[in-house]
Amino acid sequence: MGQGEARGEIPKKMEMEREKKMLKCAIIGAAGYTGIELTKILLTHPKVRITALSEICDNTPFPVQTLIPDLPSKVRLEVRPYTFSELRQRSDAVFLCLPHTKAMEMADQFYQAGKIVIDLSADLRLQDWKEYEAWYGVKHSKRELLKNAVYGLPELFRRKIQKARLIANPGCYPTGVVLGIVPLLREGLVEADSIVIDSKSGVSGAGKRLTPATHFCEVDQNFYAYKVNRHQHKPEIEQTLSVASGRPTKVTFVTHLLPVTRGILSTIYLKRHAGVKPARIRKALLSAYGKEPFVRLKPEGMFPALKDVRLSNYCDIGLAVDDRSDRVIVVTAIDNLVKGASGQAVQNMNIVCGFPETEGLIP
Amino acid sequence: MGQGEARGEIPKKMEMEREKKMLKCAIIGAAGYTGIELTKILLTHPKVRITALSEICDNTPFPVQTLIPDLPSKVRLEVRPYTFSELRQRSDAVFLCLPHTKAMEMADQFYQAGKIVIDLSADLRLQDWKEYEAWYGVKHSKRELLKNAVYGLPELFRRKIQKARLIANPGCYPTGVVLGIVPLLREGLVEADSIVIDSKSGVSGAGKRLTPATHFCEVDQNFYAYKVNRHQHKPEIEQTLSVASGRPTKVTFVTHLLPVTRGILSTIYLKRHAGVKPARIRKALLSAYGKEPFVRLKPEGMFPALKDVRLSNYCDIGLAVDDRSDRVIVVTAIDNLVKGASGQAVQNMNIVCGFPETEGLIP
Amino acid sequence: MGQGEARGEIPKKMEMEREKKMLKCAIIGAAGYTGIELTKILLTHPKVRITALSEICDNTPFPVQTLIPDLPSKVRLEVRPYTFSELRQRSDAVFLCLPHTKAMEMADQFYQAGKIVIDLSADLRLQDWKEYEAWYGVKHSKRELLKNAVYGLPELFRRKIQKARLIANPGCYPTGVVLGIVPLLREGLVEADSIVIDSKSGVSGAGKRLTPATHFCEVDQNFYAYKVNRHQHKPEIEQTLSVASGRPTKVTFVTHLLPVTRGILSTIYLKRHAGVKPARIRKALLSAYGKEPFVRLKPEGMFPALKDVRLSNYCDIGLAVDDRSDRVIVVTAIDNLVKGASGQAVQNMNIVCGFPETEGLIP
Amino acid sequence: MGQGEARGEIPKKMEMEREKKMLKCAIIGAAGYTGIELTKILLTHPKVRITALSEICDNTPFPVQTLIPDLPSKVRLEVRPYTFSELRQRSDAVFLCLPHTKAMEMADQFYQAGKIVIDLSADLRLQDWKEYEAWYGVKHSKRELLKNAVYGLPELFRRKIQKARLIANPGCYPTGVVLGIVPLLREGLVEADSIVIDSKSGVSGAGKRLTPATHFCEVDQNFYAYKVNRHQHKPEIEQTLSVASGRPTKVTFVTHLLPVTRGILSTIYLKRHAGVKPARIRKALLSAYGKEPFVRLKPEGMFPALKDVRLSNYCDIGLAVDDRSDRVIVVTAIDNLVKGASGQAVQNMNIVCGFPETEGLIP
Repeated sequence: MGQGEARGEIPKKMEMEREKKMLKCAIIGAAGYTGIELTKILLTHPKVRITALSEICDNTPFPVQTLIPDLPSKVRLEVRPYTFSELRQRSDAVFLCLPHTKAMEMADQFYQAGKIVIDLSADLRLQDWKEYEAWYGVKHSKRELLKNAVYGLPELFRRKIQKARLIANPGCYPTGVVLGIVPLLREGLVEADSIVIDSKSGVSGAGKRLTPATHFCEVDQNFYAYKVNRHQHKPEIEQTLSVASGRPTKVTFVTHLLPVTRGILSTIYLKRHAGVKPARIRKALLSAYGKEPFVRLKPEGMFPALKDVRLSNYCDIGLAVDDRSDRVIVVTAIDNLVKGASGQAVQNMNIVCGFPETEGLIP
Repeated sequence: MGQGEARGEIPKKMEMEREKKMLKCAIIGAAGYTGIELTKILLTHPKVRITALSEICDNTPFPVQTLIPDLPSKVRLEVRPYTFSELRQRSDAVFLCLPHTKAMEMADQFYQAGKIVIDLSADLRLQDWKEYEAWYGVKHSKRELLKNAVYGLPELFRRKIQKARLIANPGCYPTGVVLGIVPLLREGLVEADSIVIDSKSGVSGAGKRLTPATHFCEVDQNFYAYKVNRHQHKPEIEQTLSVASGRPTKVTFVTHLLPVTRGILSTIYLKRHAGVKPARIRKALLSAYGKEPFVRLKPEGMFPALKDVRLSNYCDIGLAVDDRSDRVIVVTAIDNLVKGASGQAVQNMNIVCGFPETEGLIP
Repeated sequence: MGQGEARGEIPKKMEMEREKKMLKCAIIGAAGYTGIELTKILLTHPKVRITALSEICDNTPFPVQTLIPDLPSKVRLEVRPYTFSELRQRSDAVFLCLPHTKAMEMADQFYQAGKIVIDLSADLRLQDWKEYEAWYGVKHSKRELLKNAVYGLPELFRRKIQKARLIANPGCYPTGVVLGIVPLLREGLVEADSIVIDSKSGVSGAGKRLTPATHFCEVDQNFYAYKVNRHQHKPEIEQTLSVASGRPTKVTFVTHLLPVTRGILSTIYLKRHAGVKPARIRKALLSAYGKEPFVRLKPEGMFPALKDVRLSNYCDIGLAVDDRSDRVIVVTAIDNLVKGASGQAVQNMNIVCGFPETEGLIP
Repeated sequence: MGQGEARGEIPKKMEMEREKKMLKCAIIGAAGYTGIELTKILLTHPKVRITALSEICDNTPFPVQTLIPDLPSKVRLEVRPYTFSELRQRSDAVFLCLPHTKAMEMADQFYQAGKIVIDLSADLRLQDWKEYEAWYGVKHSKRELLKNAVYGLPELFRRKIQKARLIANPGCYPTGVVLGIVPLLREGLVEADSIVIDSKSGVSGAGKRLTPATHFCEVDQNFYAYKVNRHQHKPEIEQTLSVASGRPTKVTFVTHLLPVTRGILSTIYLKRHAGVKPARIRKALLSAYGKEPFVRLKPEGMFPALKDVRLSNYCDIGLAVDDRSDRVIVVTAIDNLVKGASGQAVQNMNIVCGFPETEGLIP
């Protein structure tokens, strides 16, 4: 991201010095929605230089503006296929924005090569490869790698992330969902065996792939439930909730498709344990997130809206407790491409590298 | 709805004969969304003639095409304020498409005058006026009228409707919700004390009134929960479910605003009683609705979509039972302006008048 | 479309009599947007029976409800591939809802077999095959058939259509565009050499085919011009305008993609000849369309909206004349799938068969 | 935009030093769409401090996050009514985000008080008050102020803006329109008397005011022309084009409402003078804008899309020349709230204050 202006000799040296200290990042799978979002974020990150935008399926280099037309022309980056050895030479950190099954091999290679690896696919999220194979319907060829991967949800696992070099970046649905539940489970305020999660996602969550379901005329004016209680993000949610509750925890999880481009809103229905006061429940969320830069608890009686988190790395949370029925209702909202994918990937990178956690994510 | 073509003497007489036998209908509150929808439906109804389109707030008559530009010009109807005595003279049946509190007085007057009254407002839906006053925050001035009103959900109360002359047409949310639950409660297959209802509605449900919440820029690309567990349709749902279960039944009910014009989709979470087989649950819905012309049960593994019920009087229902967790998931979809309001009003009229129930509603 | 109810013997005979007199229609290419729209319309047409829904690319028969979920279950029609000989036996009229190049062969076969053929593709619209080959970039293999095809724009060519058996159903853009211009050109009120047409279309005009351009996330919140002055409907517009003006007439034609599912709105800029009064121009449109059932001229100062023609066969026209600048502005709106395709196809069928022209098109 | 963290003494002093040099800005009319957009931009501007967010219609102060929920909580700004004397004390520059007629008085007061005034309303745009009164239908009470106001379109009037202290920020439609025409007129390449402008705008252009036309259900799935050739931005366009052509220049100008929140795309139809080569026309745009940071000429055969300028201060321009018909087609796209309003206001402020022109506008 050069400045396009004439420069004297000394500033140039300083610039080179500065450049030397910047983290060199490669994005693999740059043309998908998460790759594009990540490129946008990293371009404004003061401690990062993008050194490769790799796209495996195409052979003709093209300027990044073809993907992201609103970038200034002074940004001179090309998208093209890179070999492993090129990427190894050029990068300190590698972001894998690939479909599941395509990521695990590369994650292994780059991890062995000593790089920081942030995998945005599902390949390293489930610690039990049998669960992976059952839910994704494919073989897991890098089972041994799983023990090195840290699940990258900073609000819950920050300390582990700080020491990690291989990050399994969470799925979009799980991010918004578990942030709304974990503090209440951890403190034993709600039952672990009657959790109902009703999630609604925008279309970009399904990626750029062309399918009848993402044709404009099929989405416009429409809304429906899909993969009812069978979505592949369910075991990922259950894995994190089981850690929080200290025992195997199952959920009911229904996903819906919203006619919007971005955002996930999840409405979560919990049962409080008898006698737990509403104020206690609110306090649990406040203690968990009061100092978190990216989680915002709405005041009593207010609830999140997709519009309020659009294009940001925030997770907004609203809470209602029905004193008569013991029902606890938590509503969470995120931008699926930011906190649900690329923003969180950068948040993880910041933590791994010891940068301020909000660098590049809050203007 | 004349034909605009020259006619010989005899057909004209026959036409007059036919006209005599047609039900004369007045629509009061013709300019709102439900009034417009009702006008459209009744114009194609072979046994009905619209004799008055009354709109109380305006004094200059205007052609119905101003409200509904896609009507053929041969439809010669005017919208204007009518006096009570004009309406009494002109109509056999009166549809009240008015906001709550505005409808009850008129309902009383027309009922006393011997008319068939179909009230699309909330004024006569809750049999207990105390509930009405608590949830709507206003006085109920026609408490004695409530005992004459029949709740117009034909699939559940058809026999009562056949003998009624005063119909409380159900709310949009309750229609789609209770159709998905009642058969399972009635047969004692699911628990009555852990019902969770997650509903999502299009914007027309909020009516034509201008509010910040219905400004295009606030709805577009947005989605959020509102009136969380405090929506005024909650007691209406509970009233019907209590009848079905035979005891006071409370629900958790969260409503959301979808960026679409029409449609309500409700995802309902129930607990089956121990040992009840999934097939038994499906059978209960099949028995209840197998012969219903307007309820369609989706095959196993399939779920409703707003698009499929748009502009129709259908309620589509999908079902999933999780054998491990005892969870029963029912998804229902309706067009809020048709089955959720004006279409159901016509269905009720058909029943009251002894017309075929689908007349004017299925082409 | 049976009634599903038991019937006595005599009514059954009468039904059979009635059936005998009904026009047997086959729809070829039933699964595309125009095929679906046509099926919906013909199912309510009182003089038509659909006898085949053919879809060439798939081999497993499926119920029409799979394509059109809002159809009542009493409609028992299957979609499947039919052989030519099956279709010849079953049909009096054949509708070709196929992509261009796929239609011409079939049109020829069915025309030779004595059927009424209504071709919704572009294959028979341009009377000069060289123009076709130049604009569509493919060979025309049925050049001799072109002289038998009548361009099916009833408002302009009704008399020819009455005697025709092979109809080239007009393109969606040309329909709305030429209806707004022809009366003014015919009467010599506007210049023929400075016509500018700015058209905006909904996404269904591009068909069901999956392309990056029709992915929801690319259309949502977007708007752009495409095929600027190079759209293949341009020569079709020019062909009709040349007939109207009596000499070769070229236009400037820019097409845009709207983030809506249905509708085309065209804003047309003309120059009046010196001295022509605004009232004279309005009168020309009134004379041309005053008795047309499907063209509606808006009152002075009012202009069409997509919403007002949605799901109908109307073409709405608005007119403004700027007395100082000689500029004439005509705005037209149609539903691209109805008046721009399947509705007009039925209108043509009605004319060819001597049915009332609005049959099945105005409720 | 305090940091909320403890700081040592020396940094604090440095911070205060830095603060002293920052431009103190007041935004009057902070709750409208342009006020909100301006607040967002100025909050990230490194040379500016917002010192007042004034909203005249309401008396209870509220945090800016109520208006802009995606702002970090560390931003501690309140919205409230300020008196003139408060604003005078607190500000170096004043932005007026007010409806027309409300701005002129304030503009005068702050201008007399020596402030930099950037008026985003229409009050000071037309140099001829008679034109203002004719098109806006109200009296102009500050006619003498007009001669001090500079029309703030930097690409055309940068030198004047550099010396100005009172800026009439251009209207949204005129910005995108005149940028596409002026270079061609200035160089005499196109005719000045046959300009046709077909513009399409998103809904936020109509502001936050509640009207039937901005109700979600009226906009969704709709599209129409409004104020056909009578939009109040027409004389503003003609004023700038007249400067460019050197003689009174009139246009045909039709505006349409798009079902999107943001963006204006204008398709402009011009006639080239005989013999002017297409390359010459492209070159004129290139020379005019080659060094402009916010105008981007698309390569041959490519055209702008709303999506590509969304949330940015760019104006994208596409060009097609039809060699046979002498027709020149220019398509321009802007974000109406950024380049069409608040972004351009900041660009003007940057120029007036001698800041780099892209400061705060390109990340």
